[in-house]
Amino acid sequence: MSNSVQSDPFAVVREKLDQAVTILEEQGLDLWLTFVRETTQVKDPSVDLIVGFDLTWQSALMISRTGERIAIVGRYDVDNVKNIGGYTTVLGYDESIRGPLLEQIQRLRPRQIGLNYSESDPSADGLTHGMFRVLANILGGTEYAVRLVSAAPVVATLRGRKSRTEIERIRAAIDTTEEILQQVRAQVRPGMTERDVADMIHGMVEERGLGTAWEWNFCPIVCAGPEGIFGHRMPGDNRVQEGALLQIDFGVKRDGFVADLQRTMYLCRPGETEPPEEVQKAWAAAKAAMEAGRAALRPGVKGWEVDAVARETLVEAGYPEYKHAFGHHIGRNAHDGATILGPKWERYGTSVEGVVEVGNVFAIELGVYVPGYGYIGCEEDVLVTPEGAEYLSQVQEEIWCIHPS
Amino acid sequence: MSNSVQSDPFAVVREKLDQAVTILEEQGLDLWLTFVRETTQVKDPSVDLIVGFDLTWQSALMISRTGERIAIVGRYDVDNVKNIGGYTTVLGYDESIRGPLLEQIQRLRPRQIGLNYSESDPSADGLTHGMFRVLANILGGTEYAVRLVSAAPVVATLRGRKSRTEIERIRAAIDTTEEILQQVRAQVRPGMTERDVADMIHGMVEERGLGTAWEWNFCPIVCAGPEGIFGHRMPGDNRVQEGALLQIDFGVKRDGFVADLQRTMYLCRPGETEPPEEVQKAWAAAKAAMEAGRAALRPGVKGWEVDAVARETLVEAGYPEYKHAFGHHIGRNAHDGATILGPKWERYGTSVEGVVEVGNVFAIELGVYVPGYGYIGCEEDVLVTPEGAEYLSQVQEEIWCIHPS
Repeated sequence: MSNSVQSDPFAVVREKLDQAVTILEEQGLDLWLTFVRETTQVKDPSVDLIVGFDLTWQSALMISRTGERIAIVGRYDVDNVKNIGGYTTVLGYDESIRGPLLEQIQRLRPRQIGLNYSESDPSADGLTHGMFRVLANILGGTEYAVRLVSAAPVVATLRGRKSRTEIERIRAAIDTTEEILQQVRAQVRPGMTERDVADMIHGMVEERGLGTAWEWNFCPIVCAGPEGIFGHRMPGDNRVQEGALLQIDFGVKRDGFVADLQRTMYLCRPGETEPPEEVQKAWAAAKAAMEAGRAALRPGVKGWEVDAVARETLVEAGYPEYKHAFGHHIGRNAHDGATILGPKWERYGTSVEGVVEVGNVFAIELGVYVPGYGYIGCEEDVLVTPEGAEYLSQVQEEIWCIHPS
Repeated sequence: MSNSVQSDPFAVVREKLDQAVTILEEQGLDLWLTFVRETTQVKDPSVDLIVGFDLTWQSALMISRTGERIAIVGRYDVDNVKNIGGYTTVLGYDESIRGPLLEQIQRLRPRQIGLNYSESDPSADGLTHGMFRVLANILGGTEYAVRLVSAAPVVATLRGRKSRTEIERIRAAIDTTEEILQQVRAQVRPGMTERDVADMIHGMVEERGLGTAWEWNFCPIVCAGPEGIFGHRMPGDNRVQEGALLQIDFGVKRDGFVADLQRTMYLCRPGETEPPEEVQKAWAAAKAAMEAGRAALRPGVKGWEVDAVARETLVEAGYPEYKHAFGHHIGRNAHDGATILGPKWERYGTSVEGVVEVGNVFAIELGVYVPGYGYIGCEEDVLVTPEGAEYLSQVQEEIWCIHPS
């Protein structure tokens, strides 16, 4: 959580509300309803987009294709929501949301009501099953009970189409992340454990008063030496050592937005000036696959098509497939939902069928394990423009060689 | 988010897993299934209880009445879940959870499968509607598709029945919160705005490397002077002033657990030694209602019964009803779900029908607005014992009089 206070904290919320109306029109959905309560406990990710703070009692945020933005919230939240300056109507209630909610829906007469549920996209799946049942009960017996549809396509587009302010903030998070990674490069020494490296990075994050891109104890992920196991795990007791690789997967969260980068280092043995040939060869293959994937990442392609290019390039070079997706949106989260640049595996559902569009910001990543040396990880952040994917990060072209003195 | 690392971070998770088996047996539920993914985006509150960190791909956490604790998680999460030391079986997968999940359910043959959904209890409502659909699809065509029930009673009991470690941590959070509130009492001066007071408190929280009990920008809630509006709102431009009240609603989060307290201060005018009579009278009425509510809070009573006692006491003393519930669980969250000590209003659903039990920790609170002076707020934290509700906080007996020098 970032503790910094913005000059106008709601400018970005108003940008997203404006975008939402445009997207409803593009996709032909009459009404988008975000239905939540006690978001400190279970937060629908869309609340960050269209509210920007927590709501307490049952709350209905309705955006209509015609441009109305209606919030029905508990009485103590009314002033806060008015302060956003982006809602055309803010209604409070004390005992039950049923009356005002029904009244507004009956006034708007939507042909479909889009709700935040999705089998594939976590960021579009913020409606809990209990709240779905509450809503079904409120609408029971009305014609609207059968007009409930998934708003996932709207949510995915809204989340993925970064606004000007959102892109600025992601850039700032990337800059700070790179600065920290360069500091690590200068300070890392053989004998440090993965945990020591993580503690060092946490110190750098705290010094700046920032948070991490994902859960603190798992960010950074640090993989030191040949025994390091790549993955989402807490840094352990493996040691940074000469003649071995050190891979770091890390990002800061700054003003509510994140970066997600990986950097690979090699600790030279005395007399060594560069990594051994087999490490270099694996690095070249990983980079070639990264670049092939990036080149395939353009407006209009589907997620799985981009993944396939990177994956095939790596496999054709004689390395095993990575067991994850090539790319994912970043923004408010390190995994920011919507389209995934991944293979057609069941666990990705339809998220890999999504179409890339201008304004999307992806982290693209892959890696290779080099027996006896450790894990090579490549990850960069890119912005999709009409011309293709443009790097937002300063691309790591070579393995960073550390010369312990 | 607390950044501190525990010596055995999973001891409390293992306590809760043990409790869960006991509760399944008590309530006669064969299998409790927590079904989640990408919990950095949408986190089922039960994940904090039975895992303690975020999970990435679709994950099934199954606890059986017979004592089995089975986790099926993405391959990169396997080692982390094994590290908990509380699961009897940890299975990883790469492409789809369908096979291993069906296999385990078919082996366990549960008569009912409890899921985390509830219309009334947010902390028991962590299953998203999309994930419910995923599960319904996986179980489709099997006899288990019709055996899905709400696990809300299990989740509420598990969450509300605090373990030894949980109570210790809540006590620690209360102690620190009181220490900070005493510091505020010593340092607050007329002319400060609500925002100044909040900034001062934020500084005290940051100095200690802690977080706040609820959203940073809304914690503390500060209500200064007669124009202050009570509620969940960001501290504003109202000023602390002589001859007026200052109310603060605040708690820290420490080692993952929170406190939630309110303290009321009065800034004496030159020559004044205590608050004016009408302020004192309102304070006495508020305190009497608090104490009546606390006395009614014992094992076996229903939530609404406790609220009714406090509410009636206040109204009979000639003051208006507070527009919120008298009490709520605290623990990992300031609103920790389960039974609410509140009136039978629709928005509270069945949560006020819950029964109080030994080991529950509640924040109890109410307030009175005194025209011309401001808001009096009382809030204390209590532990339910076999003998009744015992204060965990050092009860505020008198309004704190501040003598600006």
